[in-house]
Amino acid sequence: MTTQQLIEQIQLKKSFLCIGLDVDLTKIPKHLLALEDPIFEFNKAIIDSTHDLCVSYKPNTAFYEAYGIKGWQSLAKTINYLNEKYLEIFTIADAKRGDIGNTSTMYAKAFLEDLNFDSVTVAPYMGKDSVEPFLAFQNKHTIMLALTSNDGAFDFQTKEVNGKEFYKVVIETSKHWKNSQNLMYVVGATKAEYFAEIRKIVPNSFLLVPGIGAQGGNLSDVCTYGMNKDVGLLINSSRAIIYASNGENFAQKAREEAQKIQQEMEAILHNRF
Amino acid sequence: MTTQQLIEQIQLKKSFLCIGLDVDLTKIPKHLLALEDPIFEFNKAIIDSTHDLCVSYKPNTAFYEAYGIKGWQSLAKTINYLNEKYLEIFTIADAKRGDIGNTSTMYAKAFLEDLNFDSVTVAPYMGKDSVEPFLAFQNKHTIMLALTSNDGAFDFQTKEVNGKEFYKVVIETSKHWKNSQNLMYVVGATKAEYFAEIRKIVPNSFLLVPGIGAQGGNLSDVCTYGMNKDVGLLINSSRAIIYASNGENFAQKAREEAQKIQQEMEAILHNRF
Repeated sequence: MTTQQLIEQIQLKKSFLCIGLDVDLTKIPKHLLALEDPIFEFNKAIIDSTHDLCVSYKPNTAFYEAYGIKGWQSLAKTINYLNEKYLEIFTIADAKRGDIGNTSTMYAKAFLEDLNFDSVTVAPYMGKDSVEPFLAFQNKHTIMLALTSNDGAFDFQTKEVNGKEFYKVVIETSKHWKNSQNLMYVVGATKAEYFAEIRKIVPNSFLLVPGIGAQGGNLSDVCTYGMNKDVGLLINSSRAIIYASNGENFAQKAREEAQKIQQEMEAILHNRF
Repeated sequence: MTTQQLIEQIQLKKSFLCIGLDVDLTKIPKHLLALEDPIFEFNKAIIDSTHDLCVSYKPNTAFYEAYGIKGWQSLAKTINYLNEKYLEIFTIADAKRGDIGNTSTMYAKAFLEDLNFDSVTVAPYMGKDSVEPFLAFQNKHTIMLALTSNDGAFDFQTKEVNGKEFYKVVIETSKHWKNSQNLMYVVGATKAEYFAEIRKIVPNSFLLVPGIGAQGGNLSDVCTYGMNKDVGLLINSSRAIIYASNGENFAQKAREEAQKIQQEMEAILHNRF
């Protein structure tokens, strides 16, 4: 999917919501556990119930790896289902990978080619040659950690390098990498006051924003400081939507939660554009 | 496996070699491709042929993920084989994971509990709460990226934070985390001159050292600057050993390459202790 297609979907759906598919078998409705692939059945029901309210789904690979081979099967079935039935959806493999060049190429193939996600998240610590192999894929997107939503972000990301915070150095440096037009950045919603500074560095890039809902970030603040002329934001919510209910009505309840956020987004878009 | 048990194995085998099981189907002997699980058969032959010359094996997860579910099956079979037949081996899942707390816990379970590796590599960018979930596992080890072997290491890791290189800040900070006694660090062999500085910060920690062989690092230099009273080094070699030959004699040729390194290590240990 191209960036332009993503922007068109945002305009069409009046939503820039990404739903995180972080499926934990201890949290999903009990009646699904009797099925052959409870994780996929859960995802399928959530997707069918919410796809018109969001523009993106983001499975976090940790939750699938935790169930071993069965988990990987569920992940593969989920992305295949999205790619077959909802081609207009921007899919994100939240994998936070990164390794030396030849190894990053293997990761890039795994997520962008074999599983055929539209994008994958990566960690920047190992620098240019650990990220460029991901950037080489055409019409695919690499979403690099910049300023994350957790407390640990203050351990290193906000440390000053020559008078400039480290996450800014990371973003600025990455702009010079080959195919950097394929980069997006992860910026936590819990750090809304930082968005204005980030927009000075990357006015046009999309930002993937986790941390509203369970982690405490505020949608309105993020939009005030982070939105650009193309919206330029994908706001992720996981737990608040997918675990809205653990009863048989879970998919409907998830829809209701997603709708609340979508309506809030629609109002923001209406005021802004 | 405890650190003490690892040290005993190093003394017993006169080796601190770790063999990287980075299996690429385009590089392994053609006759294996006819078998049901070529990756596992390749690993099994390499392991059977070299286990007395090394103390550790390190599959890099990228090479398994690249083959999807089949790859994960090969990875699971490989670690199960090691855990059943060669319990004295220190196993490393080279996964370079890291995420917010609840997600890192899922990764830690996947590698340290379900697959039952002795250790897993992690990336530090997201800070304390992304690493501590791994450290919580008793008699398991978390090997954090510090100064990596690739060129990209100079993009961020060697940048100065208040007059101190960033990788040093990362190592120093991590010493204050809960269960930091379970930490080891990745330091590239291509940066031998940095080892003396790192030893001032973590005199007792084990360092996992990739980058000899194909990447150009030098074993002798690394030992001069990096060895401590318990040896404290795991030197990884992947391609130079496992792809020594792609004929039917590949396992024997891999043994010969491993033996060269082991003998060099034995001589270093003899001179030093």
